[in-house]
Amino acid sequence: MKPIQVGLLGLGTVGTGVVRIIEGHQEDLMSQVGSPIQVRKVLVKDMHKQRHLNIDPALMTEDASEVVYDPEIDVVVEVMGGIEPTKQLILDALAQGKHVVTANKDLMALHGPEILEQARANNCDVFYEASVAGGIPIIRTLMEGFSSDRIKKIMGIVNGTTNYILTKMSQEGAAYQDVLKEAQTLGYAESDPTSDVEGLDAARKMAILATLGFHTTIGLEDVEVKGISSISKEDIAYAKRLGYEMKLLGIAERQDDQISVVVQPTMVKTSHPLASVNGVFNAVYVYGEAVGETMFYGPGAGEMPTATSVVADLVAVVKNLRIGVNGKQGHHAYRTKKLKTDDQIHYKNFILLDVHDRAGVLARITQVFAEFGVSLESVVQQPNPNNPDAEIIIITHEASQASMRKVLDHFMSLDVIKEIKSAYRVEG
Amino acid sequence: MKPIQVGLLGLGTVGTGVVRIIEGHQEDLMSQVGSPIQVRKVLVKDMHKQRHLNIDPALMTEDASEVVYDPEIDVVVEVMGGIEPTKQLILDALAQGKHVVTANKDLMALHGPEILEQARANNCDVFYEASVAGGIPIIRTLMEGFSSDRIKKIMGIVNGTTNYILTKMSQEGAAYQDVLKEAQTLGYAESDPTSDVEGLDAARKMAILATLGFHTTIGLEDVEVKGISSISKEDIAYAKRLGYEMKLLGIAERQDDQISVVVQPTMVKTSHPLASVNGVFNAVYVYGEAVGETMFYGPGAGEMPTATSVVADLVAVVKNLRIGVNGKQGHHAYRTKKLKTDDQIHYKNFILLDVHDRAGVLARITQVFAEFGVSLESVVQQPNPNNPDAEIIIITHEASQASMRKVLDHFMSLDVIKEIKSAYRVEG
Repeated sequence: MKPIQVGLLGLGTVGTGVVRIIEGHQEDLMSQVGSPIQVRKVLVKDMHKQRHLNIDPALMTEDASEVVYDPEIDVVVEVMGGIEPTKQLILDALAQGKHVVTANKDLMALHGPEILEQARANNCDVFYEASVAGGIPIIRTLMEGFSSDRIKKIMGIVNGTTNYILTKMSQEGAAYQDVLKEAQTLGYAESDPTSDVEGLDAARKMAILATLGFHTTIGLEDVEVKGISSISKEDIAYAKRLGYEMKLLGIAERQDDQISVVVQPTMVKTSHPLASVNGVFNAVYVYGEAVGETMFYGPGAGEMPTATSVVADLVAVVKNLRIGVNGKQGHHAYRTKKLKTDDQIHYKNFILLDVHDRAGVLARITQVFAEFGVSLESVVQQPNPNNPDAEIIIITHEASQASMRKVLDHFMSLDVIKEIKSAYRVEG
Repeated sequence: MKPIQVGLLGLGTVGTGVVRIIEGHQEDLMSQVGSPIQVRKVLVKDMHKQRHLNIDPALMTEDASEVVYDPEIDVVVEVMGGIEPTKQLILDALAQGKHVVTANKDLMALHGPEILEQARANNCDVFYEASVAGGIPIIRTLMEGFSSDRIKKIMGIVNGTTNYILTKMSQEGAAYQDVLKEAQTLGYAESDPTSDVEGLDAARKMAILATLGFHTTIGLEDVEVKGISSISKEDIAYAKRLGYEMKLLGIAERQDDQISVVVQPTMVKTSHPLASVNGVFNAVYVYGEAVGETMFYGPGAGEMPTATSVVADLVAVVKNLRIGVNGKQGHHAYRTKKLKTDDQIHYKNFILLDVHDRAGVLARITQVFAEFGVSLESVVQQPNPNNPDAEIIIITHEASQASMRKVLDHFMSLDVIKEIKSAYRVEG
C-alpha cells in the first residue's frame, strides 16, 4: 500500500509530539488505516537548532513552499501557530488539494469560515480537534456524539494557565500576582500573560465551541470577555466560605434561536462537576436538551496530549482518503446568528458591598434591587473585620444582565455604599 | 431528497425517546444529513397498549418480519433488548443490506464479533454507542478521538443502579439492603437486581470498552466480576475515614500486550475524578500513553439520554449512506488476546482484620505480608469499639493479585486473626 505523505508546518512542542506519535505508533496506525503514514517534509524556523528528537535533517526545510507545493504530500499538519503567514500557507495547501489538520485556535476562531470554505471548494478535509482543550476530543463530541441533540449550554474551563492560577489561589490562599509569577517560572504562563489572564485565549476557544454546538458562525467579536487579573484573594475566600470555587468559565448559551457567549470569572457551586477541575486541566460541560448533563475532562495542552488530537485528526483524514470521501463530512453552520441582548441574558450574581454601618442601610440597598426587579436568594450583613464599616454579601436569584447593570450603576451614587468591592456571575 | 426510512424494533422507554427525537428534531436532522428521516415501521409487543406518545397506529406491527424484510427500510434501530430473537432479527436485517443501530450491550458483549462480521460481509454499518454509558459518546471517543494513542487503562462507573446505591450508602451511612429497597421503589433497581448488583451488567459494558480500547476481542468470560452485595456500611465508613469513596469500578488495563479486565468494588481516593461521580451518573476514565488522564461524564441511562446516542448513530449511518461509504469505518480487533495471569495483575489493597488483642499480633501479621513480598503503605491497629478485640487496617503498596491471595489464604489459618472482615482494591 502506498504510504500517506505528511507535510508538517512547525516543529515546536506539538510538532515534535506529532513526529513521535507517527513514528512510535506506526504499526498501530497502519492497522487502523491500512497504509503507512510518513513524514515527508517539515518546515522549521532554524535547520541548525538543537532538538530533542531524532529526525533526518534531510526532512527539514526553512522554505514553506517545499511543504505546501510538494505534489507528493497528501496532508499538511499545521502546528506553527500564528495568523500570518500561517493562514496563507493553509489556503495555498488547500488550493493544491491537500488536506489540512491544524491545532491553531486563533486562526480557526478568526478565519474559520474562510478556511472551511476553501476546503469545501477543493473537496478537502480541514480538522482542528487540537485547537480546543488539547487532549479532549470535544470537537468530535459536539459534531458527532451530540449530532441528534439540541445543545442548550456549553461551559468550559478551556485555559489551563488561568485555571492553574485560580486553583493555587483557592488551595493556598495566595494572591494573584504571586501565583502568576510562580506560573511564569514553571512555564505555565507566558512572560506576557495577557492573552491567557484577560480571557482572550478562552474566548477564541469558546467561539469555536459555540459555532459547532449551535450550528451558527460565532466570531471572536461576539464573545464578551473579562479576565481574572482583578480577582482578589478575599474574593476567593468569600467564594469558598459560601460553597463556591472561582473559575474562569466560558459560557455559551442558546435559548430558542438566541445565543450568548461570554468568558468571565464565575463562582461555581462546589457540587458542580466543573468546580473540582483543578490545575492545568481543562473540562467542557455540555448540557443538551435530550441528553442532560455531561462533562469531558482532560489535559488542555502539552506536547503529547495535543499531538494525540492532531494525529487522531490525521487518522480521520487518512481513513477518508482510503474510502474517497474527503471534504464531505464538515460542519454546517446552517443557523442565522441572533445574539442575546443584555436584557435576555440571565444569571445569578454574587455582590460584595462595603457600606457605612448605620440604620436603614440594608433597606436602602434591597430597595434598589426591588426597583429593578432583581430578587435575592441570600443577604448577609456583617461587621467588616478591617474597619468600622460593614460588609453586605448578596446572592441574587437569576436576573437579567441589564437589570444588574442598572442596580450596580445605581449603587455608585448611593451614599450609604462606600464601595462595590466585587460582583461575579454564579453558576451551579 | 428521498427520505431515509427507519424501522424500529421495540417501542419501550428508549424506542419512545428515539421517535420523539426523530420527530421533534426533524429540521435540525435534515440540515445535518440533507434528507428527511422517517419512521416507517415499529415492532411492538402489543398494538393496543396505552402509550405516552402520539404515533400513527398504522406504523405499528407485532410482526418483526414487517420491519426486517421491508425493502423500503434503510436502517433498523434495535431497542427491544434481549438475546433471542433479537440477534437473529439483526442478522436477518444485515443480510437484507439494512444498516443497524443497537443499544443492546448484552448482545454486543456476547455476540459482537458475529454481528460485526455479518455487517462487513454485507457492507453494512452496525453502530452501538448507546450500549455503554447511555448518553456519553464513549465508543466514538475510543474509536476516533483516541485512535492515535495507546490506551493503557479504562476505568468505568458504568452501572447507574450500583452507583446510586453506593452513593446513598456513603452520603447517608445507610445499609445496603435498605438502599436497595429504596432504589427498587424509585425504579432505579429491578425487582430482581442480580445483573446490576452482582456486576454482570458492568462486566458486559467493560468487555465492549476493552475490546475497542485495546483492539482485541474481549468476551464476557474474560472479565473477572465481583458485585456490591457484600459491602457493609462499616466498609464505607472506613473508606471515607481514610479518604476514599467506595465505587463499583470496571477496570481494564493493558501492559505491553497483556490485558486484564475486572469489575469489583474499589476504594477510590477522593481526589480522583471518579470519586465524585454520584447517583445514577456514569463516567469513564481513560488513561492514554500520550494523552494522559481524561474522563467522560454523563447520564448512563434513561429515555432521552440513551435515545440521543441512538439517533447520533442513526445520523452517522445516514451521512455514510449519503456519501456511499457504509460498512467501511468499523472497528478492527487486530491484536491477539493475551490475558494477564494473577501474578501479573498489580494493585493496592485495603484489608480490615479483626484480631485477638495480644502481644505480637502485628508482628505475626506483617511477617506474612513480608513473606509473600507485599509491602505496606500504612498499618493502623486500634481497639474494636464493639468487642474486646482489636482491628487492624492495612493499606498495601501495589502487589500482585496472586501474592495477595496467598496472604489472605495464609491469614485464614493464622490463630491471631479472628476474621478477615474486608479486602478491597484501592485506586487513585
